[in-house]
Amino acid sequence: MQEKFIVLAHGAGGKENESLIKEIFGNVKLNKVEGGIGLDAFDDGALIPAKTNIVTSIDSYTVDPIFFPGGNIGKLAATGSINDVAVMGADPIAALDGIVVEEGFPISDLKKIVSSMINVFEQENVALIGGDLKVMPKGKLDKIIISTTVIGMIPQGKIYLDSMVKPGDRILVSGTVGDHGAVITALQMGIETEIGNLVSDCQPVTPIMRLIRKFNDVHAAKDPTRGGLAMALNEFAAKSGVTIEVDEEYIPMKEEVSALSEMLGIDPLSLACEGRVVLAVGSEIADDVLKILRKNGYDNASIIGEARDNKDWNGLVLLKTRAGGMRILEKPTGELTPRIC
Amino acid sequence: MQEKFIVLAHGAGGKENESLIKEIFGNVKLNKVEGGIGLDAFDDGALIPAKTNIVTSIDSYTVDPIFFPGGNIGKLAATGSINDVAVMGADPIAALDGIVVEEGFPISDLKKIVSSMINVFEQENVALIGGDLKVMPKGKLDKIIISTTVIGMIPQGKIYLDSMVKPGDRILVSGTVGDHGAVITALQMGIETEIGNLVSDCQPVTPIMRLIRKFNDVHAAKDPTRGGLAMALNEFAAKSGVTIEVDEEYIPMKEEVSALSEMLGIDPLSLACEGRVVLAVGSEIADDVLKILRKNGYDNASIIGEARDNKDWNGLVLLKTRAGGMRILEKPTGELTPRIC
Repeated sequence: MQEKFIVLAHGAGGKENESLIKEIFGNVKLNKVEGGIGLDAFDDGALIPAKTNIVTSIDSYTVDPIFFPGGNIGKLAATGSINDVAVMGADPIAALDGIVVEEGFPISDLKKIVSSMINVFEQENVALIGGDLKVMPKGKLDKIIISTTVIGMIPQGKIYLDSMVKPGDRILVSGTVGDHGAVITALQMGIETEIGNLVSDCQPVTPIMRLIRKFNDVHAAKDPTRGGLAMALNEFAAKSGVTIEVDEEYIPMKEEVSALSEMLGIDPLSLACEGRVVLAVGSEIADDVLKILRKNGYDNASIIGEARDNKDWNGLVLLKTRAGGMRILEKPTGELTPRIC
Repeated sequence: MQEKFIVLAHGAGGKENESLIKEIFGNVKLNKVEGGIGLDAFDDGALIPAKTNIVTSIDSYTVDPIFFPGGNIGKLAATGSINDVAVMGADPIAALDGIVVEEGFPISDLKKIVSSMINVFEQENVALIGGDLKVMPKGKLDKIIISTTVIGMIPQGKIYLDSMVKPGDRILVSGTVGDHGAVITALQMGIETEIGNLVSDCQPVTPIMRLIRKFNDVHAAKDPTRGGLAMALNEFAAKSGVTIEVDEEYIPMKEEVSALSEMLGIDPLSLACEGRVVLAVGSEIADDVLKILRKNGYDNASIIGEARDNKDWNGLVLLKTRAGGMRILEKPTGELTPRIC
């Protein structure tokens, strides 16, 4: 007899655990990295043959609501960790997932979530090589948390670090900012009717990074998730010891995101993106990078500012406002939106 | 002003998140794998220089209670994932952690937990190269969940898989079974007064594996966690297509574990261990393996049975009971103990 809801036994490591995993991961190929060992062996660990540098990242996803316009927690968990590895300059090749789910959770929803996660991995040619599934008693966890680790390979020494922004670099963003954050915040505030056609920008940035990596003079790349563009730019400025000046007018933003931000009284530049990249590139290639991004469907890609060496402001981000003034764009503080990703 | 309890802002990816991480991870060296990039860069991902095969594993730890005799969820999260990689035959070299914590959680407890986790990593010379910290609103998560990924290197082709047990192999266990499971179950049942001096066996199995790897004829190794010895032996039997026969009399077990199991009406062979290894080794080296384990402080290491090719029973585990009978030792079913690890 098949259960329709998660029971504690599904997480106990015995028979029921095995059969649930077969049921929800049933449609995944017995994934492994070529020449390695993966889910096909269902052993304690997985093996990846490596000859080059490895890049890796972990994130625990707690987004609420777990289904949202443009995605769900499974798609987000796959995408988010792929993006963290991709913006370092690596090709994501393998992933592991740790799912913790609440007793009583509908198995049909779990299947949808896992299948969204697997779809992203498959489209990105990332082998899901290992995982874990635990169950918490009812009331001890709100629905589900997914942790993912993604592993990528970097062919040679080319790596993009937040600390490598140079004075003179142009700052680009690959698309509109704050879409994901605006959608989730609106849903949490119960004003979903105001969302309109806005959807989360949740998507892998690997196609962007593949375009970018053809250029020699790209210095830093970052996906502006929690804390949004404001946090990403502050990381660049602080770690690279440069002043970053951006022009509000050039920051691409959807009407709906501006409107929702105003309604909720929040700074849209602090709203999370889940499918954008902020780049610092040499000034001589900035226009070419912009051109290639736009040519490949990233219509809202923009040069939004530049990095300078200004000893009074190094480590900080300056925002030229639409009104014509200049203000420090600070690191976001406060709780912003809990469970945004 | 320092907060004493976790607030939502601690998980929001802004300033408070940064300062909490500095506070609780403050005593960790800016860890990286030699020649790589790690927490020192605090970037999106970490870099590991690799020249050999990589072994990796993820687990999400939900143990309840989070502090228990012999350890806590932090020690367990570090140990458990190190062990999964070690029993594959790898040297663990790097780790990543994803912490999800409930709003209102005492920061002093979080520090204790993180410091236990870091201690294990440091003792094991495992670089903690990346991590994530999220906060769930009060009531949405019972205290804390920690997910860890550990990455290990395997020098040459030597890897231990559950599927490599051969007929004739002797089955060994490195110490008493069920200690961790018995402690946690008793605490959950509210009979802590019955635990006596029993503590969880939570500890890295890397010293055991270093001893074992000197032998050429070791075929399989496994840490019997969820589902205990019963599950581990069933995995060996099923994946290797052999019959495994073990003798109850030779299975090392503490008095307290037998007594607690009887009191609770559970099978001690299904109780989790968190610091033991089950091995399948060629018969000609079994005594030497036993000798070296005992000589190195594993006083309760025992040869508990052997693998056979018996077409009637291949894939199954047979247990010779103390009473002299023979029964099939099945994969554990049912919920056993929720949140055992």
